[in-house]
Amino acid sequence: MSNLPVELTEAQRRIAAAYDPALLEDAGHRLITLLAANLARAERSEGAVLPWVDPEDGIQEAASWLRETAVSAAAGTQPELPERLADLVRTMLARGLNLHDPRYIGHQVPAPVPLAGLFDAVGSVTNQVMAIYEMGPWATAVEQAMVRELGAAIGWAAGTFAGTVTHGGALANLTALLTARNVAVGDAWEHGLGCDRPRPVILAHADAHYSVARSAGILGLGSRQIVPVGLDKQGRMDPRVLDKEIARLQAAGQPIVAVVACACATPTGAFDLLPDIAEVCRARAVWLHVDAAHGGAAVLSDRHRHLVAGLQRADSVVLDAHKMLFVPGLCAFVFYRDKRHRFEAFRQDAPYLFDPAAPGLAEYDSGMKTVECTKRAAAFGLWGAWSMFGRQLFADMIDVTFALGRTFFEKLAAADDFVPLHDPQCNIVVFRHIPEALLGASPERTGAFQLELRRRIIESGEFYIVPSKHQGVGALRVTIINPLTTPAHLDQLMEALRRHGRELLAG
Amino acid sequence: MSNLPVELTEAQRRIAAAYDPALLEDAGHRLITLLAANLARAERSEGAVLPWVDPEDGIQEAASWLRETAVSAAAGTQPELPERLADLVRTMLARGLNLHDPRYIGHQVPAPVPLAGLFDAVGSVTNQVMAIYEMGPWATAVEQAMVRELGAAIGWAAGTFAGTVTHGGALANLTALLTARNVAVGDAWEHGLGCDRPRPVILAHADAHYSVARSAGILGLGSRQIVPVGLDKQGRMDPRVLDKEIARLQAAGQPIVAVVACACATPTGAFDLLPDIAEVCRARAVWLHVDAAHGGAAVLSDRHRHLVAGLQRADSVVLDAHKMLFVPGLCAFVFYRDKRHRFEAFRQDAPYLFDPAAPGLAEYDSGMKTVECTKRAAAFGLWGAWSMFGRQLFADMIDVTFALGRTFFEKLAAADDFVPLHDPQCNIVVFRHIPEALLGASPERTGAFQLELRRRIIESGEFYIVPSKHQGVGALRVTIINPLTTPAHLDQLMEALRRHGRELLAG
Repeated sequence: MSNLPVELTEAQRRIAAAYDPALLEDAGHRLITLLAANLARAERSEGAVLPWVDPEDGIQEAASWLRETAVSAAAGTQPELPERLADLVRTMLARGLNLHDPRYIGHQVPAPVPLAGLFDAVGSVTNQVMAIYEMGPWATAVEQAMVRELGAAIGWAAGTFAGTVTHGGALANLTALLTARNVAVGDAWEHGLGCDRPRPVILAHADAHYSVARSAGILGLGSRQIVPVGLDKQGRMDPRVLDKEIARLQAAGQPIVAVVACACATPTGAFDLLPDIAEVCRARAVWLHVDAAHGGAAVLSDRHRHLVAGLQRADSVVLDAHKMLFVPGLCAFVFYRDKRHRFEAFRQDAPYLFDPAAPGLAEYDSGMKTVECTKRAAAFGLWGAWSMFGRQLFADMIDVTFALGRTFFEKLAAADDFVPLHDPQCNIVVFRHIPEALLGASPERTGAFQLELRRRIIESGEFYIVPSKHQGVGALRVTIINPLTTPAHLDQLMEALRRHGRELLAG
Repeated sequence: MSNLPVELTEAQRRIAAAYDPALLEDAGHRLITLLAANLARAERSEGAVLPWVDPEDGIQEAASWLRETAVSAAAGTQPELPERLADLVRTMLARGLNLHDPRYIGHQVPAPVPLAGLFDAVGSVTNQVMAIYEMGPWATAVEQAMVRELGAAIGWAAGTFAGTVTHGGALANLTALLTARNVAVGDAWEHGLGCDRPRPVILAHADAHYSVARSAGILGLGSRQIVPVGLDKQGRMDPRVLDKEIARLQAAGQPIVAVVACACATPTGAFDLLPDIAEVCRARAVWLHVDAAHGGAAVLSDRHRHLVAGLQRADSVVLDAHKMLFVPGLCAFVFYRDKRHRFEAFRQDAPYLFDPAAPGLAEYDSGMKTVECTKRAAAFGLWGAWSMFGRQLFADMIDVTFALGRTFFEKLAAADDFVPLHDPQCNIVVFRHIPEALLGASPERTGAFQLELRRRIIESGEFYIVPSKHQGVGALRVTIINPLTTPAHLDQLMEALRRHGRELLAG
């Protein structure tokens, strides 16, 4: 093996042991058995949804595993490696949040299709990454096949649009708004944001996700350069208000980077009226970005596609597969209606990456289009699940979870001690529990009760739901993003809230 | 199960089938068997390193799998699901780059510790994500345990520094430089980059990674606001030149966001003299950012730690575990020497995320510190591999691959028809093959030959190496980032280059 220094022979032996295919096989089979048992346990609601521990205790425990190895290896008492892996995996499973428990109905993060995680594992074990085509030929193929499939579902003609995948909706919004900024402010990329003009603004749905204002902060526009556009009673951006705002700003000579509409908005899942908004943006010649991270998946459902009618008129669209396409994080799509914009976000060379001997391949180099240089094969899970189960499964999951949002709303409305705070368009429902003792309480008291109740119930491990605010007052919020949740679970949730509410008021 | 609409019962049945734990178990065991066999095959160099296909052919094939399901499902001919998964996985493995083949010595992307991918799979299948502590309690624990372990290895005292994990070195550099920008230009976050002052600049190693100039473009500073600092003969930033540049800029009243040093620089793997650079930055009161994406791992090696002496004096440091800690992409650490800076990158509220009922937990909410809102448990692979094999394995892999860089340099220097272009400090080696027929050729011809030779050899599947430029002329580059590569493989590479070179010249 060697003309390496002699003292490295022992190191090579240790490396060969760690890279032994037989170890991967042995440890891998143990892993699968544990994962399947854990999935069965979670789906049957055995154990806590969230095994609450204090953060510092968790960190100490994670750190202790790092140190323990060294100690036991030195002492010659290290357990067999596959058994060691099993111990570690058992700990990870015992300490993690159980998203496959049907009582998990929390953030906009799904209980994913379990097999999607296996397809992601192919990428992890073999380290398929992108940046340039030749590093991840199949990762590129899969990503672009999914871009074309989803772009067609949005309604664009083949060959006219472009898209890429990035690590999360926040990064996707940043990438699309960077493109819009570079288009609107021609020399911003090279020379930064100048001062020989009024400062550019972004007009955004007043309840747009915090990553939009954050993008303005990152991009040097300034987070306060977001002009919030007023909403109608359903929480949707009002197209007439938008039109007036644009007219006012344009009359003042103010550059507008983009209008940001939501499909749907985070707080209550309201879908903007995209045809009207698109018409305003077209008439006023302003870039329309639609944050469809959550709701864009509705293009796959015959029943709910109407919610995103007009999406194809946006200049840029963000769609998170790791939300309503039920794959593990992170897999966020950025689309450009006009493929000419696909290289606008970044304008640079990296000679050691992009090969002058094969210039045509740059079209397939993801590093030209995303903040990430090296990028993991983030679309394997989606491609695998789709290839296994077909498009129908995604429509099914959207239909079932959206229907449950409606069911939950009806249950809340029918109860004396619950108040739904909006008529849900999808699987996001915001509400309050108002037991009799709280009738007539101040908004502060009512809101604080919701948040205390929420904390109590998640730490009990019985359910996982999230806190919210509605008109400035604390509220409860669910996203029914576990397709295994049933109406019976929602009845149980209401009962659990009543019980914890009584205990809270009694305590 | 229901008071859902009756027509959704069939959808629920299909969903239950996709979420069946028995399917996960059955399909998962097939996956593991295929992954282990593939690893064995790759390690034995059976088959091509890179199975070259035209990008459009790959996309068509990936797309055909998406459509085929629907067709065969409709026709009732869908194969059993675990067998379908096996077919898909076989295709993924057959079409991907084989990083575990010891003849893969290409980009700064490793042949990872295979078990690290299994630990990542725990995160994928169960969808452990972060943003707020309670969504990923164990993901948070693991990430912070690794931050503390690596920060201590850099040389910081417990409790004084802070760190987080993000999706790749480019995003990590962006995050650190965003922090530096917000510190240097006090109101940039809220109000954008103003104009009542000379435009801020970043002083960077003249060969800094392209993500540094890109960060300036993204952040609204302008990619041309990078002031490149001249290098010494070894390709290291010259501290005296740096000092003069800072003095000149400060005398002109120019705000300086940061100095970016490299440990090591991408082109030839040169390590900056950090103690001298840190002293300049301290004396001139400028933020020092060290891009130690590749070389920072050397803190774990007794043999090579000297290369990053002074790293602990940086204000911010980037270290990619998915480079020289041999885990799959993406797992990049951003460190701040002074933990007071940990919330400087972003300055925002997201009320539905950050719970006023438990304000102390915000310290553990990753979404406050990274561009990502929802973030996958990116440190599971590193934590798992470390807990399995201990810190020693990482030192071993660094030592073996760095030693091989030296070995390769010596082989090149001893050959008549190869020219090493620098004295390597690590596992990056840049060189040219100059067969006799090319002696005395123009630089253009010599450079073009290297790139054509490179393309030929990677498309042959025999080796995977990358193109580069040295002093403006095309060259060949290897990163020996596969710890299974041996000196014998390097001999084979030289032979293969000779043979392909002859064929190229003959053709």
